[in-house]
Amino acid sequence: MSDLSRLSFNSQTAKHWPLPELIDAAGRGGLGGVGLWREPVREAGIDRVAHLVRSAGLEVTSLCRGGFFTAADAATRQERIDDNRRAVEEAALLGARTLVLVCGGLPSGSRDLAGARGMVADAIAELAPFAGDHGVVLAIEPMHPMYCSDRSVVSTLRQARRLAERFPPEQVGVLVDAYHVWWDPELVDELALLDGRIAGFQVCDWVTPLPAGVLTGRGMMGDGVIDLGALRREVERSGYSGLTEVEIFNARLWQRAGHEVLAEACRRYLAHVA
Amino acid sequence: MSDLSRLSFNSQTAKHWPLPELIDAAGRGGLGGVGLWREPVREAGIDRVAHLVRSAGLEVTSLCRGGFFTAADAATRQERIDDNRRAVEEAALLGARTLVLVCGGLPSGSRDLAGARGMVADAIAELAPFAGDHGVVLAIEPMHPMYCSDRSVVSTLRQARRLAERFPPEQVGVLVDAYHVWWDPELVDELALLDGRIAGFQVCDWVTPLPAGVLTGRGMMGDGVIDLGALRREVERSGYSGLTEVEIFNARLWQRAGHEVLAEACRRYLAHVA
Repeated sequence: MSDLSRLSFNSQTAKHWPLPELIDAAGRGGLGGVGLWREPVREAGIDRVAHLVRSAGLEVTSLCRGGFFTAADAATRQERIDDNRRAVEEAALLGARTLVLVCGGLPSGSRDLAGARGMVADAIAELAPFAGDHGVVLAIEPMHPMYCSDRSVVSTLRQARRLAERFPPEQVGVLVDAYHVWWDPELVDELALLDGRIAGFQVCDWVTPLPAGVLTGRGMMGDGVIDLGALRREVERSGYSGLTEVEIFNARLWQRAGHEVLAEACRRYLAHVA
Repeated sequence: MSDLSRLSFNSQTAKHWPLPELIDAAGRGGLGGVGLWREPVREAGIDRVAHLVRSAGLEVTSLCRGGFFTAADAATRQERIDDNRRAVEEAALLGARTLVLVCGGLPSGSRDLAGARGMVADAIAELAPFAGDHGVVLAIEPMHPMYCSDRSVVSTLRQARRLAERFPPEQVGVLVDAYHVWWDPELVDELALLDGRIAGFQVCDWVTPLPAGVLTGRGMMGDGVIDLGALRREVERSGYSGLTEVEIFNARLWQRAGHEVLAEACRRYLAHVA
């Protein structure tokens, strides 16, 4: 039986699978960890989930998600920061190593990209010490530029690195998700410069044609064009020693039984990433 | 009557409008130029189109498209280069200032992004002197990273600039299309570094949600999130003195009468770009 101890399974990959069953299956399957999302954790009960992952001997590689710092008015921005504080506390309760930041797109009606990026930097500056005090690293996730207007105005590894470098590495790091960064001509150089700043590594594959809305068309590893093995080696060369987390948003995958999706993710990980 | 002499209308914006009618309307409307595509030009007859644009006093700001240099086998790559030579000759016949290069995505079944980028560089090196001898600038168009796998492995202004800088500016330049580059955190810095290398400037707007396939969802200027006026000023600050070309691929727009689309493009250009 091949080694899955370096693999983490993000719960959104099998989003309709009850979390307790998913955690149990990941533990029995010999995986090293799981990636969790706030809403399903809340539904199952955060104390219960924290107990289940510990009993299963699993690491929580990430909690999704914080961020969405960009808003037209200061009151809304403050609400977002307050909610991110709660997310940090939830991550600490779960023993999650990182809180993933989906930083937010342009405020409704705005064309001020520089202004939105400033809001993100200000919010992270306000949250960073709080996260560090809780033993949680804020993981800035540069998202594919096709999400710049509505998901994240942080679009490249360089941009995320420059933002993260303003803070101690125990407070702010960078999440490397293959789907978002595989295309970047600066990829290898930037991974090297991230030296010790990578707070998480997520994989899936890039497949076309993209579906309408471009949110649920991510591919299972091996179905697309990303050289995931080479990317994993560069990420490790940059000093990342954490697990590889499989996170796939795919409408067809969500129709399948959770245990089947987990089994296929494990096979594909061993064949295309490990 | 406001000044449209700095505006060029790309024929694909009203793709079902017969080219002779489009050219006539652009000339009467006081526009400065048109952007053309090889197939409709061939249908209408290249000598006839060349005569019509000259009689209408229009500049041909671009001919689309050359490129697609990436292919698994050498024979196919050579065919592509030969076809690009014909495209250069067609651009010269039309008096087009540039041949737009859509460089090509990953060869079928390939995950070798660096290799594909090498094929692009090799092909441009082979074509550049030929283009210069014909008075045509090869305009490398960095395309949005969401097209990296299937349209162009050249995804950013920096990447396009570094490629173009290997050649004299009268042989190779960079096409700046707002749709492809608006999100880039390096946008302003890279436009400055392009100093004299910008061979063309195209505008439309970024609107979401993106349609399936992400090809025909471009927005009319003002309908989206791009600060087109600011972008035009940066492009001009970089030394670009050419026309602004409107190029919009939009399934709904294509259902409307050509003269209506042209009229709206002119209004939107004056309101949001000029």
